[in-house]
Amino acid sequence: MNILGRILLIEAGLLAAPLITAAIYGESVLPFLWTILTVLAAAGILLLCGRRTEGGLHAREGFVSVALSWIVISLFGALPFVLSGAIPNYIDALFEITSGFTTTGASVLADVESLPRGILFWRSFSHFIGGMGVLVFMMAVLPMDDEHSMHLLHAEVPGPVKGKLVPRMRETARILYIIYIGMTIAEFVLLLCGGLSVYDSLLTAFGTTATGGFGIRNASVAGFNSVYVEMVVAVFMFLAGVNFNLYYIAILKRSLKGFRSEELGWYVLIVIFATVTIALSIAGQVGGFLPGLRYSFFQVCAIITSTGYGTADFNLWPSYARTLIVLLMIMGACAGSTGGGTKVARLVIAIKSSFGEIRHQLFPRSTIRHTLDGERLDGAVIRNTLAYYSLYALIAMASILLLSLEGLDLDTTLTSVISCLSNIGPGLNLVGPTGNYAVWSGGGKLLLCLCMLLGRLEIFPVVMLLAPGVWVGMKK
Amino acid sequence: MNILGRILLIEAGLLAAPLITAAIYGESVLPFLWTILTVLAAAGILLLCGRRTEGGLHAREGFVSVALSWIVISLFGALPFVLSGAIPNYIDALFEITSGFTTTGASVLADVESLPRGILFWRSFSHFIGGMGVLVFMMAVLPMDDEHSMHLLHAEVPGPVKGKLVPRMRETARILYIIYIGMTIAEFVLLLCGGLSVYDSLLTAFGTTATGGFGIRNASVAGFNSVYVEMVVAVFMFLAGVNFNLYYIAILKRSLKGFRSEELGWYVLIVIFATVTIALSIAGQVGGFLPGLRYSFFQVCAIITSTGYGTADFNLWPSYARTLIVLLMIMGACAGSTGGGTKVARLVIAIKSSFGEIRHQLFPRSTIRHTLDGERLDGAVIRNTLAYYSLYALIAMASILLLSLEGLDLDTTLTSVISCLSNIGPGLNLVGPTGNYAVWSGGGKLLLCLCMLLGRLEIFPVVMLLAPGVWVGMKK
Repeated sequence: MNILGRILLIEAGLLAAPLITAAIYGESVLPFLWTILTVLAAAGILLLCGRRTEGGLHAREGFVSVALSWIVISLFGALPFVLSGAIPNYIDALFEITSGFTTTGASVLADVESLPRGILFWRSFSHFIGGMGVLVFMMAVLPMDDEHSMHLLHAEVPGPVKGKLVPRMRETARILYIIYIGMTIAEFVLLLCGGLSVYDSLLTAFGTTATGGFGIRNASVAGFNSVYVEMVVAVFMFLAGVNFNLYYIAILKRSLKGFRSEELGWYVLIVIFATVTIALSIAGQVGGFLPGLRYSFFQVCAIITSTGYGTADFNLWPSYARTLIVLLMIMGACAGSTGGGTKVARLVIAIKSSFGEIRHQLFPRSTIRHTLDGERLDGAVIRNTLAYYSLYALIAMASILLLSLEGLDLDTTLTSVISCLSNIGPGLNLVGPTGNYAVWSGGGKLLLCLCMLLGRLEIFPVVMLLAPGVWVGMKK
Repeated sequence: MNILGRILLIEAGLLAAPLITAAIYGESVLPFLWTILTVLAAAGILLLCGRRTEGGLHAREGFVSVALSWIVISLFGALPFVLSGAIPNYIDALFEITSGFTTTGASVLADVESLPRGILFWRSFSHFIGGMGVLVFMMAVLPMDDEHSMHLLHAEVPGPVKGKLVPRMRETARILYIIYIGMTIAEFVLLLCGGLSVYDSLLTAFGTTATGGFGIRNASVAGFNSVYVEMVVAVFMFLAGVNFNLYYIAILKRSLKGFRSEELGWYVLIVIFATVTIALSIAGQVGGFLPGLRYSFFQVCAIITSTGYGTADFNLWPSYARTLIVLLMIMGACAGSTGGGTKVARLVIAIKSSFGEIRHQLFPRSTIRHTLDGERLDGAVIRNTLAYYSLYALIAMASILLLSLEGLDLDTTLTSVISCLSNIGPGLNLVGPTGNYAVWSGGGKLLLCLCMLLGRLEIFPVVMLLAPGVWVGMKK
């Protein structure tokens, strides 16, 4: 309760940003004011009921705190949409803000250009808040003992490979945020140079470095009509999909050797392969290989990093391009980045341990040690990877089956679930780049909200809320 | 080479059956005669070149022998189709016979009723040959030392849980075949009682207990127009999807306690769940819940056991039913049965070890032992399961991507690959129950042949043909 209370205090503080934006543009600040007051009241109640824990947190308390925090900030974060009348239905608003915080970028709105500027700011700002993790932010700004922090960081930063950057967790959280904010500012400046307004540049940068993808034009990034803007956004999407630890190491060592990482190598290779082959496949449709490269590079970066910005309707592309896009959705970006999906590192672990198993079956007496970036792929890593993939597949299958009850076509159903579970945004057919998630019923949207949360927190923390024994004997 | 030679001798012997059938019905026996002579010549060359190995086989030699045997019998088994003119194109014929041996049941033919009876017999008989494994058959009938046999049995019988039934491998092979033949005879007799001809009963039984699914009517089993026949076939499909070891234990102990198996429990539950929910979902289309149950039970058994017989066009069913059918395709039947797919046992292992991982993360100090039917799920089992699922997923994705180059819709492409990789037969859309695989090009068909082989041999033996070091220093 103490952690939840503090998270809500932070949310109330962050809500000041859209409030100020609304004030600048002369719009009503009441929706934000009422939300801030409600959030502060809830925070007060939680802080009064929950005293600070003595000593550190157990692992399970860390997981549970993270999962509940994300649910709570989404429940309150939806209020401005409802109070302003921009999205009158609460479930729709909840879908929109969950999509924002989880950096999914899936929307129920067909016309975003008609939204008030304050609301549009809150929508894109939620990406920025969720990108590096709201609890990581809390650790960076509020005093908190180290054991507390470790479990929270562990649960909120994506990917199977987690290294402490520096011995103190709070320092790690700060460093991650400094890199993250620095990257956002760099993109913001470059977009300003491209002739975009301050407002447009800022919101587009929020959506990029967080790999979120909420567009602020109805035609997404294509709405800016500028190859320069497209390429800046594409490059920053690509950069946001890289493990943030690598940037820190590179800065620390003042050398590019920090980027020596097997996962990064695979990530780069996959992006190049997908960009070139998709460019070839769509060359006929878009008038040549070079225009093909332009759309292909942008779309590949948008999908593999789970951003979901669009400059082309890939739903109309040939089978090969559409199929590869769906595969990239599942794969996702690097561990420790702001990107979603199942992460390149897990794929590399799975491939390496599969070849290890083949060798073991062929030569039962040989001993083979597989490593990823120097770390041994031992039984614990393999068990965790199998568990993650299994739960991902089971949750995907159960969700697809439940959603199929609504009777839409298989492609729409399948890609809605994969897109939300991987925090991408667009899917195929009805939820393609030109469609939106309003096609689903309220129940379907709630299910997809759950998928987005599961995807963003990499399944375990959310599933643990339901695990037997997890609530027994928990510290008040 | 010695093993390949002996396998071809057996194939030549088995080809006598369709030859006799053709003679009985007064058709030309020449296609079979020429094939037999060709096979005998090839066998002779192989046996002359390859002397029998001294001592036992290494694991890798077992795997390689199994993979090569399946390729070789398919290459020769396609000849009667070509020589008789029934399927003039060799690649089409190869697709058809690979589909037969691997018990897939995917066909390139739109009109099977016009085929000569001998050819139709060979087509269904190939299911029977492949169902329990052609090398297992060799072990049962030809003298072979025990270490030889172990690796062959290991590579050819599906599923992750392999118990020796009796200490001597040859006995195990015999017992498996006796149960298999007994089950086929039982179904044959019951179908005869239902008024089917000897020919129809026999071929339908071949396709059922091998979980193959080649129909001998254009409308598959629906062509017999008999609820009795449908139910007999459905029940025997269900029975063929059960681990054959359990039958042996039950017979040995003369008690139903032999069927106490966790995997079987899950299998039964899944069949019941799928049958009831699909019946509810299609009730509106077929005029009530009871007719719904009839079609649903048959189709669920046909798909989960990977048989692929049809009594209804599930391609026209509601989204929910179609989606569940695709999920059942991936899941498959029990380990140690003649069925395909990824096997219920692996799903149970994945689920159990996932929950183990969650508990481990929540309570890092607790030790949890998970077992499946008394066997501990240790690191080796988990590594093997992850490797299998990863390779299945990678091969599926690569094949889907390659096939998508042909430009057909995503559902057709996706379900063609899954259906072949799981040895089912029908898929959705163009390859649905009323369609066929003639929609794919020659290259596409060869790729799907490879998928069928990979699926039937559970990936490892086929992949090992390409593994580095596997051919080095192999015994001549």
